[in-house]
Amino acid sequence: MEKEKGVDFEEEMVESREWVLSKYAANGFPTSDHLQMRTTRVIITEDSVPEGHAMVQLLYISVDPYMRTRMNGLQGGLYFPQYELNQAITAMAVGRLIKSKDPNYQAADIVVSPFFPLAEYCVTPTTYFRKIDPDAGISLPDYISAFGLPGFSAWIGIEVLGNPKPGENVFISAAAGGVGMYAGQLAKLKGCRVVGSTGSDDKVKLLKEEFGYDDAFNYKKEKDFDDALSKYFPNGIDVYLDNVGGEMLEAVLNHVNNKARIPVCGAISQYNQVWNESKGVRNLLNIVGKEVRMEGFLLASYLNRFGEFVMAMESHLKQGKIVSKHKIYYGIETFLESLESIFSGSNAGKVLIQVCKQ
Amino acid sequence: MEKEKGVDFEEEMVESREWVLSKYAANGFPTSDHLQMRTTRVIITEDSVPEGHAMVQLLYISVDPYMRTRMNGLQGGLYFPQYELNQAITAMAVGRLIKSKDPNYQAADIVVSPFFPLAEYCVTPTTYFRKIDPDAGISLPDYISAFGLPGFSAWIGIEVLGNPKPGENVFISAAAGGVGMYAGQLAKLKGCRVVGSTGSDDKVKLLKEEFGYDDAFNYKKEKDFDDALSKYFPNGIDVYLDNVGGEMLEAVLNHVNNKARIPVCGAISQYNQVWNESKGVRNLLNIVGKEVRMEGFLLASYLNRFGEFVMAMESHLKQGKIVSKHKIYYGIETFLESLESIFSGSNAGKVLIQVCKQ
Repeated sequence: MEKEKGVDFEEEMVESREWVLSKYAANGFPTSDHLQMRTTRVIITEDSVPEGHAMVQLLYISVDPYMRTRMNGLQGGLYFPQYELNQAITAMAVGRLIKSKDPNYQAADIVVSPFFPLAEYCVTPTTYFRKIDPDAGISLPDYISAFGLPGFSAWIGIEVLGNPKPGENVFISAAAGGVGMYAGQLAKLKGCRVVGSTGSDDKVKLLKEEFGYDDAFNYKKEKDFDDALSKYFPNGIDVYLDNVGGEMLEAVLNHVNNKARIPVCGAISQYNQVWNESKGVRNLLNIVGKEVRMEGFLLASYLNRFGEFVMAMESHLKQGKIVSKHKIYYGIETFLESLESIFSGSNAGKVLIQVCKQ
Repeated sequence: MEKEKGVDFEEEMVESREWVLSKYAANGFPTSDHLQMRTTRVIITEDSVPEGHAMVQLLYISVDPYMRTRMNGLQGGLYFPQYELNQAITAMAVGRLIKSKDPNYQAADIVVSPFFPLAEYCVTPTTYFRKIDPDAGISLPDYISAFGLPGFSAWIGIEVLGNPKPGENVFISAAAGGVGMYAGQLAKLKGCRVVGSTGSDDKVKLLKEEFGYDDAFNYKKEKDFDDALSKYFPNGIDVYLDNVGGEMLEAVLNHVNNKARIPVCGAISQYNQVWNESKGVRNLLNIVGKEVRMEGFLLASYLNRFGEFVMAMESHLKQGKIVSKHKIYYGIETFLESLESIFSGSNAGKVLIQVCKQ
């Protein structure tokens, strides 16, 4: 090809590993049958970067439950844009620019974008870049956690859609995960009584001791979610930030107060199964009797609130009113393992990959 | 008793038949095992009416699906205030005053109230009375249909919660019932494309020819609701006024457009079964992917909009832009039959009982 003429290939390229999806996984957790790491060569000469693009070395990659919903091949009407087969899948990430063909950015700038290829290096449009000031007193991982998908999801769920009043009862499922950890702290800052469900006794302790939850329970130890909610919500539930769907949602609908709000952030209990093989929620009639508002949301629809969110979250972080917990995997080769850990519930806090030493 | 002293019982009382619930019916349609008509004697002397009460002869009684939800004994966490056992059940009705101990009302006044005993005669507080002008050009049955629970429910569902824009696609289930007939006409007045589902070919015809629906289908003839919705909504569904719940709701969630609204008025498919024996809705995850807002509502929470609603509906009725269809049963003894007809889908339009000749 014309542009390779005269290039010393050995010196002016880097090897980059990236993750591709070669087959959709309708049922069960994806394996190496579905997701593979492949090595590509990224040319680093100036003219290999088109106008409006930049070459970036990725530093931190966000690993989030929603990624699973983009790998299922959409059985029968379920929504979520699917990853393209045999292309690098995408993720929110923080990266450092190596070269730039956009006058707004230059080499060595640190940027965050929700749509990086899940790779070590890439050449990508700068469209969704946001520049980071590394001296602002915020750690780089916080740009994909507190300021990233989980922090923004928690804020939309609690501040915008749930909007609990002081003293109201707030329930959060998957409470020790990325979204849950911020959501609980945001609800506490609003003066609510906050209870979380999570998957281990250690995480119950974490919720109460580090994230300020008023109470928490290990759902794996509860035989009957209805009984658990009777115990933890003697005065009913006013806001339920739903991260799990399924049986817990059904149990919640038997404990909602009048005019309860259920912002639906995700349904992690449903992601590894074909939708019409799941059990179903049988008591939606309670939505009428208790005048419940259930509302699903995607962050893309709330970008007009992003500035307000960043200001609020930055203030909370700097004053120590909100803390982050990160579970960091090292090396891009850990992607499958790190994603799986979200579904097995083996970690607490926001899961992310540190791609290289900074 | 003191107040009976000197009363000529034979002349100063009337016999009144009323319906009482003697046993809750968790499963299946209530029968004469659960609901019985009994005869009481209503004393019509002046001093038998307490202050703030009136003695009323009922003229028209509204028969509505929600009444079934008040007869099930609330299995495990399902909501809806239950009728008291062995008391006259209540219903919205139009009646004529015989005596009044409230200076705002006098004998011969015609009033409507959402909480009359389901009886021929009664002595009842005037708290929720609204006086009707019989010369206003509105038929008395319209006060419990167009201006009653079905009309107000349709208006809240379409105008307040669904709020479709011109050209949007609106789907209405139980479309030939009381709520559906008004909802479809209100959505047409907003410039929407409106499709309804109903339970017979005759009612399909009625929807298209009398209520102005753009299209309609007989759900009993559709093997697969998903296929039906693909056919009738090639461009997806923006607003679904849900009167039935269950399988149709699940199918709708596979055809919703982004930011679809689902005002949930009722779930008639669920009323005759115990909640945890029903099939359940398995694709609530679509609420996230399509950012759907589902919201249950009870009319009591929207009384502040009632005046606005009455003005709008009155204008539509008088201009012939909205028409009512009533299925009138004669005599209070028809209550069980009339309620059952709503669940068998054997009638079209608003079901009501004319208690006596006017």
